[in-house]
Amino acid sequence: MCMDRILLSVTGFNPHRWQELLAQDREVVLEPDGSNDPSIRYAVVWKQKPNVLARLPNLKAIFSIGAGVDHILADRTLPDVPIVRVIDPNLTQHMVEYIVWRVMDHHRQGLAYRAQQARKVWNERAQRTAQDISVGIMGIGALGSAAAKALTSLGFHVNGWSRTERKVSGVNAYHGESGLIPFLNSTDILVVLLPLTDQTRGIINYELLRELRRRNGLGGAVLISAGRGKLHKDADILRALEDGTLKEASLDVFEQEPLPKTSPIWGNPKVFITPHAAATSNPAHLVRPMLEQMRAADEGKPLLNLVDRAAGY
Amino acid sequence: MCMDRILLSVTGFNPHRWQELLAQDREVVLEPDGSNDPSIRYAVVWKQKPNVLARLPNLKAIFSIGAGVDHILADRTLPDVPIVRVIDPNLTQHMVEYIVWRVMDHHRQGLAYRAQQARKVWNERAQRTAQDISVGIMGIGALGSAAAKALTSLGFHVNGWSRTERKVSGVNAYHGESGLIPFLNSTDILVVLLPLTDQTRGIINYELLRELRRRNGLGGAVLISAGRGKLHKDADILRALEDGTLKEASLDVFEQEPLPKTSPIWGNPKVFITPHAAATSNPAHLVRPMLEQMRAADEGKPLLNLVDRAAGY
Ligand SMILES: NC(=O)c1ccc[n+]([C@@H]2O[C@H](COP(=O)([O-])OP(=O)(O)OC[C@H]3O[C@@H](n4cnc5c(N)ncnc54)[C@H](OP(=O)(O)O)[C@@H]3O)[C@@H](O)[C@H]2O)c1
Ligand SMILES: NC(=O)c1ccc[n+]([C@@H]2O[C@H](COP(=O)([O-])OP(=O)(O)OC[C@H]3O[C@@H](n4cnc5c(N)ncnc54)[C@H](OP(=O)(O)O)[C@@H]3O)[C@@H](O)[C@H]2O)c1
Repeated sequence: MCMDRILLSVTGFNPHRWQELLAQDREVVLEPDGSNDPSIRYAVVWKQKPNVLARLPNLKAIFSIGAGVDHILADRTLPDVPIVRVIDPNLTQHMVEYIVWRVMDHHRQGLAYRAQQARKVWNERAQRTAQDISVGIMGIGALGSAAAKALTSLGFHVNGWSRTERKVSGVNAYHGESGLIPFLNSTDILVVLLPLTDQTRGIINYELLRELRRRNGLGGAVLISAGRGKLHKDADILRALEDGTLKEASLDVFEQEPLPKTSPIWGNPKVFITPHAAATSNPAHLVRPMLEQMRAADEGKPLLNLVDRAAGY
Repeated sequence: MCMDRILLSVTGFNPHRWQELLAQDREVVLEPDGSNDPSIRYAVVWKQKPNVLARLPNLKAIFSIGAGVDHILADRTLPDVPIVRVIDPNLTQHMVEYIVWRVMDHHRQGLAYRAQQARKVWNERAQRTAQDISVGIMGIGALGSAAAKALTSLGFHVNGWSRTERKVSGVNAYHGESGLIPFLNSTDILVVLLPLTDQTRGIINYELLRELRRRNGLGGAVLISAGRGKLHKDADILRALEDGTLKEASLDVFEQEPLPKTSPIWGNPKVFITPHAAATSNPAHLVRPMLEQMRAADEGKPLLNLVDRAAGY
């Protein structure tokens, strides 16, 4: 039996294309042959079935199919092997596009113009320039700093908030708990790109949204959220939209996904919804670097883009 | 009587703010005192009343309130004095934002996602990256080349079409009649930023739209039009949307403005409408350079940004 197989364990989508591409290099199994299959050296996972990884005696590393790894760490029986996460130019490009798209649509009053069109109203609205607006990126890591670069080059002011101190060119940097309120107080459009960790769960609540600046001619603060749904208190976001704490929101992620048909978010005219589609992991781009890392690891070279399990991302 | 007054002659909007700012430097008149008022040295105009400029014996130059000057040249009695048009960083910024906004909204399938939201459908759509898409800018002058720069830095391929040969960094340049078909054949998203002249009137017709490329994963060609409405055959645009020649359009300008309530464009779900609001002329930004040019001209210095009356723009 071949002794360097890959376990592919995913929930929520069809892994066929991943399997096909991974199999160019190594044998891929979707279910291990036994409870403690010794033939599996690497696992490629998205919300893996619980308990499966723990039983693999020769597992050397786990590869996440997404940039976030909360779906992996949620498994309480997770073995203590390195976890490799995705940092990829194609994924980053998609996220930068999503952020630029949503920032521009709020800044240029897309929701208001669509509502006018529906009523056949010809009415030019007062319009600020990007130079009047501060976008605050909450979680300014691999994706956030790329989005910041695009936004500053379009003329926006950009604030960034991180856990540890970080310099990102052209960005007003804030960090840690003490930096949060000053960061929010100088932000008109809040972009959430945090990972989901014990520290960040539920962080996007009513009290936080109240700290946003709202004297910018946008007519109110805006939330754009593309990190993870469990960062939110969805009910708080709705409350903030209701009472004007938020003017509008673009939501790509939700406390419960798929968003239930019964959720009032669907019909809220101030919300623009995408179905966790800001930046999809594309196997055509992501599989090759995974296979390269596996080969390098077999040759004893270090793995890149490792998750810090203490920090949780 | 003061002999260096400014005539301010506009149609279609309230000139109060322009008057106030121009008056910081010189006396401003809204109606000349006589049929051949000798006190007026400069005119600042938007669709001036016909016949008024012709009668001013000491008129030295005409300043356009917009980047386009078709509204001035339409006057058959226009005297032969220099016409200064607007080239201004603030106006350019607004247009760049509009173009980036509309390109991103079509590229990222905003219309489709809004339709899904209305039906509470959670469905991730296949998504190309900017690198897969060519945006073709028809009229790559002051505004078009700034838009090109923003679009290339976001990852899009950019084609440009001009009357005379032009190099714009990062842009595939086409020019003249012989360049038009090759330009269209390699363009997925067409952005129209031409001036209205005898050569360009009605240029956006069905035959032209048929030449666009439509094998890009966008699911069809897209038109974004922010030059002048009289560049269009609006009926041809509707026909192209009807039969799939165009997938979607963003229209800021229309053959008739304001767009009549009876127009079928309002209700077309494939069209996104703004009311000639892509890039407004803001007096807070534009008046100062006008006054500076007047002062310079008084000192015998040459005027900048002059219209080429033979070319018509
Ligand atoms: N919606 C989608 O389609 C989609 C697609 C891909 C990714 N995502 C989400 O985007 C997230 C970010 O991805 P990434 O690649 O940019 O991750 P990353 O490089 O790890 O960046 C994460 C950023 O968040 C900051 N952060 C983490 N915990 C924090 C805390 N407690 N307080 C303050 N800042 C904190 C980090 O601070 P430091 O710089 O100090 O470490 C870093 O700046 C992923 O975790 C994933 O959940 C969503
Ligand atoms: N919707 C709005 O809110 C709004 C706001 C501002 C302006 N505009 C419109 O935008 C237009 C462009 O402004 P701009 O400042 O960029 O003007 P510009 O600098 O004069 O650029 C015009 C461009 O069009 C090209 N062109 C002109 N006639 C042509 C022809 N017959 N065939 C091919 N190309 C031709 C020019 O070619 P060359 O390079 O060879 O000269 C140039 O590249 C204005 O005329 C105005 O109508 C609309």
